[in-house]
Formats: sequence, C-alpha cells, structure tokens
Amino acid sequence: MSTNQVLVYGGCGALGAVLVTSLKKHNVWVCSIDLRPNEEADANIVVSELNDWEKQSTEVHERVAEVLDGAKVDGIFNVAGGWAGGNAASAELVKSANLMWKQSVWSSTITASLAAKHLNENGVLSLPGALPAQKGTPGMMGYGMAKAAVHQLTRSLGEKGSGLPDKSTSVCVLPVTLDTPMNRKFMPDADHTTWTPLSYMADLFYGWMTTGEKPKSGSLVKITTTDSVSTTEVL
Amino acid sequence: MSTNQVLVYGGCGALGAVLVTSLKKHNVWVCSIDLRPNEEADANIVVSELNDWEKQSTEVHERVAEVLDGAKVDGIFNVAGGWAGGNAASAELVKSANLMWKQSVWSSTITASLAAKHLNENGVLSLPGALPAQKGTPGMMGYGMAKAAVHQLTRSLGEKGSGLPDKSTSVCVLPVTLDTPMNRKFMPDADHTTWTPLSYMADLFYGWMTTGEKPKSGSLVKITTTDSVSTTEVL
Repeated sequence: MSTNQVLVYGGCGALGAVLVTSLKKHNVWVCSIDLRPNEEADANIVVSELNDWEKQSTEVHERVAEVLDGAKVDGIFNVAGGWAGGNAASAELVKSANLMWKQSVWSSTITASLAAKHLNENGVLSLPGALPAQKGTPGMMGYGMAKAAVHQLTRSLGEKGSGLPDKSTSVCVLPVTLDTPMNRKFMPDADHTTWTPLSYMADLFYGWMTTGEKPKSGSLVKITTTDSVSTTEVL
Repeated sequence: MSTNQVLVYGGCGALGAVLVTSLKKHNVWVCSIDLRPNEEADANIVVSELNDWEKQSTEVHERVAEVLDGAKVDGIFNVAGGWAGGNAASAELVKSANLMWKQSVWSSTITASLAAKHLNENGVLSLPGALPAQKGTPGMMGYGMAKAAVHQLTRSLGEKGSGLPDKSTSVCVLPVTLDTPMNRKFMPDADHTTWTPLSYMADLFYGWMTTGEKPKSGSLVKITTTDSVSTTEVL
C-alpha cells in the first residue's frame, strides 16, 4: 500500500532519478514532471511548452489536476536545474542567464503554485538552491541570479500570506557539488569526498516528509560534505 | 562643455526623468535607454524588442555602440523596473513574475554587459534593487525574486573576474518607497515623510560618479527616509 503521494519536478535528472528510485523503495506513489517520462514513476507529466512560462504553467497545472484528480500530495520535491557559466564580458551572458532562469525559476515558481493547490496541510515543498549563490558568483552570473531568486522565493513561501497550506513546510536545499555522473565526467580529478551523494539528498527529502523532523518553513538548508560525511545546517 | 558621459537605463520612468534633468543641469552628456525617447537627453535608444531577451540585448548593444562610437561612459545608471503583487495562490503569479523579471533582470543583465564594454576604468554602474527583497516578500513573490536576483548580480559584479573594468564600481540601490507621482496616487494616505525623494537619488548617483566618494564595488546600498531626511547604509 502506498503511504505517501509525491510530485518530483525534474524526475529524470541525476538527482531526480535517484529520488524516484528511493521513494519507490519506500512504497511512495510518485508522479514525475520532466521533459521525458521516468519509467519507474507511477505517473508522468511530460512538459512540452518550453518557450512560454505562462503556457508551461498552464500545461503542468492541467496535467497535475488530471493525474491527482482531487487527491493531495505529501511532498513536492523540485530537483530541476542545470549549470552555465559566464561573466559580464561573456558573449553568452544573456543566453546562459535565460537558460538558468527557465530551468530553476520557471520550475520553482510553478512548483510554488502547484503547492498552493495540491499540497497537504502538513506537506513538504523543497526547491533547488545552491550555496555559492549566497554570495557573488562572478564566473557564473546567470546561475547565481537564478539560484538567488529561488532562495528568496523560499523565504517568501515560509511567511504568513504566502498562499500555501498553513502547516506546510517550504525549504530550499543548498548543496555545493552533488556527486552526479556528469560532475564525475567533467571534474574527474576533484576531491570527490567533498561531494554530496545523491542518496543522502533522497534520504533527506524522505525524512522531512515522514518523520515530522524538519526545518522551519522558509529555511535555506546548507548541505556540505567533508571526508564523505554529509551534514545539514539551517542558514 | 560636457564633463561626463552617462547612460540612463529607464530614462523615461519617474526616477529616470528626474535623473536626466538633474544630470543635464550638471552639463552631463546623457543617453537614455527606454521604450520611448526622453526629449531632454542628448541621445536616445528606443527599445523595440520586448519579447526576447537575447534580441533585446543585441538591439541595445548595437545602438549603444553606434551612439558612443568608441567613447567610454563614466556612469551607467539603471533605474528601470516596476511593481506587481501576487502570492503562490494567485492566478497571476507567473504572469507577474515574468513581467518583473523582464523589467528588472533583463535590463540589469544587459546593463552589466554594456558596462563590460563601455564603462570607464573608474566608472560607476548602479542597478535597481529593493530593501524588502532582502527578506521574504510573500505578497509580491515575482517582484521579490527579480530584485533578489539583481542584488546577487551586484555582488557578482563587485568580485574579481566579473568582466568589468578593474577600478570600476558596481552598486545596487535598495530604497523602500520612492516618492513618485504614481506612489502618491495609489497611496495618498501613506506617511510621505518616510518616502525617499527622487532628487535625493539623483544627487546620490551624481555624487558617486564625480566626488570619488562611493561605496565599495559590489555593495548593496540601503536607502531609508525618516522625517523627510534620507540616509544611506552599506549592507
């Protein structure tokens, strides 16, 4: 029997896929929202509107309403996002900033509006942040802006009048580097004992949803890994 | 004789128009960038590409390069922006977030890339922030995200490797409420002695450009007004 119902936004990414697998082991009912289906998920919403934020929001809302058919979810975990570099002198600055905005902020804003409609009273919403964006990020300006916006949205969601269910909890996870296959490929010589395992992230989300032990709503949760040991700290 | 050359991004807004008038009194050469021309400005760039960030950037860059014809500017003051409300339950959330992003972040990103090409070694770049966005803004989520992104961009611009000229200074101004005709119209009963006069802002920009006394690059400058007296504080 499924004990919880969850939406995973970005269920086909490196973290999303590990999260879906982990949630299925715990018998959670999972709906993945991504550009392609995740075969392990119980339901899939494949996003086709990629050029218009309002149309993408309408598409996702319509499909989620159909799939849930009035049921509520206990968790909405947004693990979408990507990375692009570029400083003010880069010819690609606007292009990369636009891509970062679409990947992180479009999805996070739509996630927030989904939570207002479909999240349970005691549910958990998580958004994808990044620790470096708490300061300046001169070599990756578009990435920093997008993540800073997601951090600030999380603060807004944690306050009275946010439009979310009263006792629900919104948090943002701020890792430094996740231990993904792509990061291994592009940074083979980095110190991998400082990278955060995807399974740690998946366990964190599941724990927040099920144990009742979770950060205060609106929290930015810093996640660091030293000598292969990961820890969290609420900022 | 013109002693300084300046770009004003948003030269037709309430603050922009006051800034252009003030700069002209000081014999500054002014180029306004906005959706319509400012008749007082020495040159005008009228933005027509409103739906595509990259195209807008290309349009503005081409026109600025033509107008400056190899000359550098001493100041680039971005005073563009608007306001829209909306929490996570608002049907207009994405629409308003999109508008806020276009007004504040498109223009600020393009401003940063203009500065990389055209700002003098000791020049000043200013971006439009907002004090409320340093915390959560549950009733105006799109506005808060856009301003938070501009704040973080300013931090990036102040660091080594930003792509800006070495000794240039990038700042972000964070007022609470500016004393504009529109704010007077919509908030007639508010305490106007706590609103910051537009002339104060104009004097601030001119002073940073000409006196050599200015905040450290990357600073967020909080601007508050009490009993009609305005003060700045670097955050």
